Parts: sequence; C-alpha cells; structure tokens
Amino acid sequence: MISDRDRAMMARAIQLAWRGRYSTHPNPRVGCVIARGNRIVGEGWHERAGEAHAEVRALSQAGYEARGATAYVTLEPCSHYGRTPPCAKALIEAGVAQVFAATTDPNPSVSGRGLDMLREAGIRVTEGLMGDEAARLNPGFMKRMRTGRPWVRLKMAASLDGRTAMASGESQWITGPEARQDVQRLRAMSDAILTGVGTVLADDPSLTVRRDEMGDTGDATDPSRQPLRVIADRDARTPSTARILRGGNVQVFCASSTLATGPAQDLAALGVRLTGVAWKDNGVDVSELLDALGELGINELLVEAGPTLAGTFINENLVDELWLYQAPVFLGSTGRPTAHLPIEVMADKVQWKVLDRRQVGEDQRLILARH
Amino acid sequence: MISDRDRAMMARAIQLAWRGRYSTHPNPRVGCVIARGNRIVGEGWHERAGEAHAEVRALSQAGYEARGATAYVTLEPCSHYGRTPPCAKALIEAGVAQVFAATTDPNPSVSGRGLDMLREAGIRVTEGLMGDEAARLNPGFMKRMRTGRPWVRLKMAASLDGRTAMASGESQWITGPEARQDVQRLRAMSDAILTGVGTVLADDPSLTVRRDEMGDTGDATDPSRQPLRVIADRDARTPSTARILRGGNVQVFCASSTLATGPAQDLAALGVRLTGVAWKDNGVDVSELLDALGELGINELLVEAGPTLAGTFINENLVDELWLYQAPVFLGSTGRPTAHLPIEVMADKVQWKVLDRRQVGEDQRLILARH
Repeated sequence: MISDRDRAMMARAIQLAWRGRYSTHPNPRVGCVIARGNRIVGEGWHERAGEAHAEVRALSQAGYEARGATAYVTLEPCSHYGRTPPCAKALIEAGVAQVFAATTDPNPSVSGRGLDMLREAGIRVTEGLMGDEAARLNPGFMKRMRTGRPWVRLKMAASLDGRTAMASGESQWITGPEARQDVQRLRAMSDAILTGVGTVLADDPSLTVRRDEMGDTGDATDPSRQPLRVIADRDARTPSTARILRGGNVQVFCASSTLATGPAQDLAALGVRLTGVAWKDNGVDVSELLDALGELGINELLVEAGPTLAGTFINENLVDELWLYQAPVFLGSTGRPTAHLPIEVMADKVQWKVLDRRQVGEDQRLILARH
Repeated sequence: MISDRDRAMMARAIQLAWRGRYSTHPNPRVGCVIARGNRIVGEGWHERAGEAHAEVRALSQAGYEARGATAYVTLEPCSHYGRTPPCAKALIEAGVAQVFAATTDPNPSVSGRGLDMLREAGIRVTEGLMGDEAARLNPGFMKRMRTGRPWVRLKMAASLDGRTAMASGESQWITGPEARQDVQRLRAMSDAILTGVGTVLADDPSLTVRRDEMGDTGDATDPSRQPLRVIADRDARTPSTARILRGGNVQVFCASSTLATGPAQDLAALGVRLTGVAWKDNGVDVSELLDALGELGINELLVEAGPTLAGTFINENLVDELWLYQAPVFLGSTGRPTAHLPIEVMADKVQWKVLDRRQVGEDQRLILARH
C-alpha cells in the first residue's frame, strides 16, 4: 500500500536529486530521503562523481535514527564496490526497515541486484513509486544503458519565421540575454556538445559552459568540469587556433582516411582526440557517431549545429528533445533556415509534441519531441 | 472621484459591448449599464446596425428607475439623428443624473458633441474611465476616423520552421480544427477580407464566414452578413468561376488601365465592383489600397494573402496586428516562407511585441504588433 506520505517523500527525494543536474557527470542524479513516519531524519543527494552517494549522505545525517526507518531513493541503490562501497550494504548496516526505489538500475547486468541484496537482508522493498518522474532525472543514463546511445537534445535559436541567421551568416544575437543564459544551463546539463566544422569555421564558438553567465540556479556546479566538445569534421579542417580547442577536452570525428593525414596529426598534436567514422553524401553517419559517443560514456548530448547537421538529426529521427528558442522577430525570407530538411509533401511533415513551453525573457522556449 | 464601483460598472458595459463583436458592422461595438448605487437597473449593447443603440436598450430596461441614475457607456452617446434618434437626447429625457463615457466619438466632426449636449442639460459627465479597454472594442472604427484607413490584421498559419506550404503549394492543413474555427471567428469580426489573385488562382478559397464552423461563442451573429471580399488583381485575372465570387459582395482592385479591358468588364458583369489603383513592381500600392478601403467604410481588414502581399504589408509597416497560428510541425526548408521579406542585416530585423499568446487546440496563436 503506497500512501500520500510515501509519494511526498519520494517527490522530495526527486527534488533533492535535481540539485545535481549540473554536477554529477558521468554519474546519474540521485536523491534519498530517510523518514520515520512523517518525520524526515536524513536527506541526501549525489553531488559529484567520487563524492558520497545520496544514500550515504542521507544515512550520515540520520545517524542512529536510520534504524527501523524508511528510505526513499530515486534509483536502485548500487550493489558493487566502485569508488565508494555499495549503498545497498550501507542501508542494510544502518538497519533501515523499508526501501522505496523509484527506478531500478537501467544497466541490464546489475539491474535488480541492489534491491535483491536489500530483500535478502530482510528489508521490505517497493519498486516503481514515481518511476516516470525519477527516470526523467537521468534520460541519458537510462537511454544509454538501454540502447548504447546518448540522449540527444538539439538546440535551435530561431525567429518566428523560422530563420537562424541572415543569408550572410550574421546571427548574433537572435535571442535575448535570458535565453542565452538558459543555453549556458543547458550546456552545463550536458555530457558533450556536438557541432560541425562548418559552424567552427563560420562562427568560431567556444561551446564552453561559462558559469558566470548561468545565473544563480541554487544547484551545485562543478567548476572544473566542461562538457566534452565534439566536432564532426570529415577532413580535420578545424583550425589549430579555433576557440573550441582552448582548454582541451575535444573529440573530433573525421573520415577514417583522414586519420593519417597532416591536418589530423596536427590536431592530435594539440591533444585533440580523433576517431574515424563513416561519412555519407550529406555528412557524418550520425547513427555511427551516436554509437561512438555512447561508448565514450556520453549520457546527454547537446547538438548545437548548423542547418545541415541539425537537419540530418531531425530527418533520421534521432532527436529526443528539440529545444527551440523562438525570438519574437522576423528575419526575412532570405535568412537561413533552421534545418536543411527536404520535405516534398504535407504527409511527410515532421510532427512535434510540445513537452514544455515557457517564456524566457522576451523569447519563448519550446521543448519538443517527435509525435 | 472615480470609485471601484464605477470601474466595475464600466467593465460590465465593456463586457456587454463585446457581445456585438461579430454583428454590429459597420457600427461600433457599444455597451451601456445604468445603475443606482450598486444596483444595475438597466443593461444594453448594440447588436446590429439599424437596431436600437446600447443606451436605448439599457434605458428601456431601466424604465422609471433611470431617473437620477448613473449611466456608464463605452462610447460617447451620439448627438445626431441617424437611423435612430440621438442617444444623448434619450439619456436626458430619461432623467439620468450622471454619465461616465469611456471614450469620445473618434469622428473629429462630432467628437464631444454628445457629451456637451449632456452637460448642457445639467448632467454630470466624466470622460475616459477605462478608455484604453473601451477603445480596444473598436480599433478599426477608432483608427479609420483618425487616419482614414482600416485596422489591419494579417493572418498567417505557419509551421515552427516558418513555412506556410510545401514547395508545390500544398498547404491543407497546417493547423488543426480549433485554429481553423478560430479563423472563422476572426473573419466574422472583420469588415473585409483581402487576398491576392495569386491565392485565388492557386487555392480558390471562398473567404466567407461559415457560421456553423465558428463554434458557439455566446455572442450575437448576423447570418445575413458576409465581410466584403477584396482581391488585389492588377489584370482582372480572377476567373468567373472562382469560389470567392459566389454570394457576391466582392471588390477587385486592379490597375486603372485594366478597367476598360474585357476581363474587367466580365467581372463587372458578374456584379463585382472594380476600382483602379496604382501598382508597383512588387504588387499593389498597399497605402492607396488602404485609403480606398477606408473610404468604403471598412473598419477592420483581415489580410489572408500569399507571401508576396503579406510581405509587402510587413515591409511597409502597415500591419496593426499579426495573427500567427503556429502548428507544432516542421514543413522543411524547401517549404514556402510565411512572407517574402528581403532583409539583409540583423539590424533590419522585424521586431514584434507579443500582445497575446494562447493555445488553440494543438496550435499556438500569437497576436503580434510591431515593436
């Protein structure tokens, strides 16, 4: 029997987990509440890889009051020795009587083991309470464990008439400062940011998280962490002076035949990692790219690319969330389209489901998923 | 001294006036409340041209209780004998003690006369209470009296990537049934609907109000009234079989030199009115067209046109309200743009102010004005 109290406690655990939205990479975001009846005796959330897990922090706050208490965790407690001892063991040793786990570990090879360990120790275990809400904490972690590929967010900033730049390429700024701040947060949520060499050559973006531009979110940050910068660059044309290369942590996907060339070796000498993947007429083989990024442990990928690469992602139905920032302007019919997307007949139109719509300064932010 | 009670009474009068939103043409929408203290003793609104004015209806409901009462009117009472006797006279004869008028008559040749008539009869008169709200009842009436031109609403139905049709011209349907119902209401609000001959030839629209598709609005309708259909058609190419010609009440603006040609005379023989106006390289001289429509008594003009005519209206800054219905779809980069609008540099972008944004079925309706 699940009570409203149980739901409220799990909601609190989920809320705590979100505090790690910008900082737990590559670990999942996890929250934990320990309660005796209506009284919360311990709360915890995972803040950074290598630091204490949510359960351990909540248990440490609860102290002796954990004995006989109920623990609410957003993700199945781990059962293995990693950088920290298994959380399932910690819960058992603390003497908790009951555990609610919103989700099981999505990794098929360990899924259910933590809960089994608890059950074997005589703890009452309930799975799935607010499971959908908890799964949303870690869409990339969940998807990568299931499919081997990261969760893909495609970001676009466009006018009401669907343009992202003038014909000349001029594009700064379409959206207002609030939307640009929001994009900084979106980057901070991401494990990696993907762009194409065309954008590197045209706009020379750094694609870094600038924490001073994120605003005060109240959430944890990890100032030492930058998302992996990823460039689709068949011929290794990224200039050695490109801003995106500053600070390192850059991965270039080029054609396999490019790997042995001078330009590729020049980039490698700068510390850039290069991987050969397949290319098609209209650009990189995006499916292969996503598989490779999954193997690199990328959970959440942000695509900030020009119309060609963006169009490929949409066209091949590989976008999990389209984050569309819409400015209340018209850029005119000669402006650049949001995505190169050849559609001949109305029946082939791309239909979106609006997951979220909100005002961000003067602009509107839509989060869309394929219908 | 204006009290909250006065504001509440005027708000009610404005609410009543809106019931005529689809039916008072060419008259303005007007509401009237007659109150004794907190007690409303009479309410009225103008429903159709030729029928009783708002004040007369409210007075008739109030009966002898109008003596010594306060009248709240959204528009200055008329002072002239038209199809009905002057309302100012009716208020005087009924013995009201005080009149609040939200707006004065925008017609410069009669403005203030009705209020003067009341004052001369010893009635206490207060102008301007909720004047902005009341003026919004009749944007076209107000604007035409001031400038000689109608209020211009440009309607567009577009995708999130700013397309209104496929390259082939295929466009049915971008938006959902709720948005199309909303457009029927928008048409019913309008005195005239303007399109270009290109749209007539390509889509053969009827551009009529289909009252059975309006839904139940709770407002009055005038089943016998259709907005004037207006076609910008330089060479009188509108086919005699075009749907837009059915039911009559069509005005074609052509080149003056076209008037004497066979095609023009064929249209005239079908009862179509033709007027010669100036044409430029990119189409009709829109300023001249608006002057001509103002002379025809058109208060509120709805533009439902293709990208060329729509682009001219935007480019020449002649749009008072852009009604943009946005469907949550992408039609692709080969689709037709919302408006032909050549803009070279970001500094020349068209900046909109969002007056209203709401969900209409699956679509989003934005009402925009130039910033």
